[in-house]
Amino acid sequence: MKINENYKNLSESYLFSTIAKKVAVYTQQHPEQEIIRLGIGDVTLPLAAPVVDALHAAVEEMGKKETFHGYGPEQGYGFLKQALMRYYARRGVVLAENEIFVGDGAKSDIGNILDLFDVDNTVLVPDPVYPVYVDTNVMAGRRIVYAAATRENGFLPMPQADVQADLIYLCSPNNPTGAAYSRDQLQAWVDYANERGAVLLFDAAYESFITDGDVPHSIYEVNGAETCAIEFCSFSKTAGFTGTRCSYTVVPQALVRGSLHLNAMWLRRQTTKYNGVPYIVQRAAAAVFTEEGQKATRAAIDYYRANAAVIAAALDEAGIWYCGGKNSPYIWMQCPGGMKSWDFFDHLLEHAGVVGTPGAGFGAQGEGYFRLTGFGDAEKTRLAAQKLKEAVRVL
Amino acid sequence: MKINENYKNLSESYLFSTIAKKVAVYTQQHPEQEIIRLGIGDVTLPLAAPVVDALHAAVEEMGKKETFHGYGPEQGYGFLKQALMRYYARRGVVLAENEIFVGDGAKSDIGNILDLFDVDNTVLVPDPVYPVYVDTNVMAGRRIVYAAATRENGFLPMPQADVQADLIYLCSPNNPTGAAYSRDQLQAWVDYANERGAVLLFDAAYESFITDGDVPHSIYEVNGAETCAIEFCSFSKTAGFTGTRCSYTVVPQALVRGSLHLNAMWLRRQTTKYNGVPYIVQRAAAAVFTEEGQKATRAAIDYYRANAAVIAAALDEAGIWYCGGKNSPYIWMQCPGGMKSWDFFDHLLEHAGVVGTPGAGFGAQGEGYFRLTGFGDAEKTRLAAQKLKEAVRVL
Repeated sequence: MKINENYKNLSESYLFSTIAKKVAVYTQQHPEQEIIRLGIGDVTLPLAAPVVDALHAAVEEMGKKETFHGYGPEQGYGFLKQALMRYYARRGVVLAENEIFVGDGAKSDIGNILDLFDVDNTVLVPDPVYPVYVDTNVMAGRRIVYAAATRENGFLPMPQADVQADLIYLCSPNNPTGAAYSRDQLQAWVDYANERGAVLLFDAAYESFITDGDVPHSIYEVNGAETCAIEFCSFSKTAGFTGTRCSYTVVPQALVRGSLHLNAMWLRRQTTKYNGVPYIVQRAAAAVFTEEGQKATRAAIDYYRANAAVIAAALDEAGIWYCGGKNSPYIWMQCPGGMKSWDFFDHLLEHAGVVGTPGAGFGAQGEGYFRLTGFGDAEKTRLAAQKLKEAVRVL
Repeated sequence: MKINENYKNLSESYLFSTIAKKVAVYTQQHPEQEIIRLGIGDVTLPLAAPVVDALHAAVEEMGKKETFHGYGPEQGYGFLKQALMRYYARRGVVLAENEIFVGDGAKSDIGNILDLFDVDNTVLVPDPVYPVYVDTNVMAGRRIVYAAATRENGFLPMPQADVQADLIYLCSPNNPTGAAYSRDQLQAWVDYANERGAVLLFDAAYESFITDGDVPHSIYEVNGAETCAIEFCSFSKTAGFTGTRCSYTVVPQALVRGSLHLNAMWLRRQTTKYNGVPYIVQRAAAAVFTEEGQKATRAAIDYYRANAAVIAAALDEAGIWYCGGKNSPYIWMQCPGGMKSWDFFDHLLEHAGVVGTPGAGFGAQGEGYFRLTGFGDAEKTRLAAQKLKEAVRVL
């Protein structure tokens, strides 16, 4: 029996475990010091009332023989896909119902989509990056090349004519940097992919945080994307579903390579290796698109974005360069005085009791940068912003 | 960009779509005839009251900031894994908490586990079989060999010394045949796998239907299984979770090949490509193991098993050979008078208005057999059994 030896090539990620250990040591030494955690990208507000109501109603249905739901369609119920079609149509993107696949999370979908591609492909991944893009391809044994995201390019790398890439990951608004591509920039990526027959894997998990009119919410707002792009999105950040689990993936019918239709391949993959999202969760997700649902979930996003603005204002006052915050819950700041990521982590914990995420943990180009999130409590975030300014001042 | 060309080797499964088309034509021609569906393996009873109560309580938690749950552990919450440890311990199987992985369905887990194995392995699959075992390996391009399940071996094929196999699928109690391996038979498979370093993929999805004391509920009741077997199980049939989605997979710490621990590999796979089962669903699954939960879910299983017994009694009266029904919701009957599977399907639909599943749809060895399920309504199943007897009599 031969094991998948590619697993030996995975590097252990010590990022969040190292953070946890450092915080534990500090807490033991300073039991009186309050710790404010602005590190991990998890939401803190509860599910919105219309979503809670929809869940209770669906649970009641499941408890009665006449309204019970057994196996559903693996690719999601029509009521949810139709709500998503209307959501896309608001921005002029017309999708067919069978181009939408409901899933349990963008992480699952982004990992599982790789089943459709040969091992012998070159994958282009931005650096710094969400580690899942890298690890899922290392597991399969694909070649990986990196596109450097730097302060010079606004952490928005553009296509390079001399780089050969078959699968291209884009995340906009970006995790971890919060940077978001403009329409023209995405058009350049779409044209590049179409010219070479490459496939764009477009991660739109943070689209609901976009405020800038020039930043597309969907790759399909860009001309020609339907022949080269697969889009992933999730209810996790849009509606606080990190513990409730629902996502959606769009695979256009026009996305064809040789004789194979990627839409049909993904349908076959999902019907063979997946059995769909719980009925009650799909009802909860559909409730996000009602008038009350939109109002309540927009309020939560505004709350998180206001937190990011508070952090941004503190950095402006301190004269520190950053990107993100505007179209994103993430602030990506340059460590002051040329400090390294982990050194600034230690300094901020020591002098402010604030926990963030060292940029070096997201890739080589992240060294010297630091991620803070707007997902915390509003009052604590205000306190953290104040302490951040003071901690920078003493440097 | 190179697509995964193995998808071209998948054969389209027309089984359930052909059934649906035939039933639609018949219904149009005979609008007065009631159709009784004993074909698809989906449950019909609602979620048990203790499960519904647990769901409502968990939804309330999700609606309040103080008790909200965001990202949970990808491999499942401790409260559910501990309930599963106690469930296994009842039969003397001692598992560590980190040997259990909570998932969204046995279909997902059985498909995704293949990430751990090299393409260059030979897979042994029983015939007839749950089509997922075959299709997931065709997608990856692995060699498949079949173990013939026949009336002669009671639809329980045993290891053949001259067959080289690296990955071996066993499903007991079996879908579609309802046959269940004894302890001695499973010991022979475990010994065979350990001798050759093969890995057994043991599908225990129907374990809760077992009545026979000599039939193990878990492969780990068999000596030596911890060094060769991965076990998959689900709440779908045990507690009517086909539309609620929860499963569990056991990967023992002792399962090591070369320098790679399969438990660590699966943990890495799941933490990289998966984000866990909804908190509310894990609370629902844990409620299955309370005293009230066990009572209510056992009652549903007894109901389905009684349906299977009604069908079995009708076949006994008609003098037709069958297996299953005793430790399984499935009855696997030989078509009367040497009829082929689809001919008997047409005959039963025409003369009884009863829909079953042609055995030929599960593999070449299924030809001449027919599957009926106990998952229907009790009264309709009694009526179907009566009509089945009459339909056989007129042949």
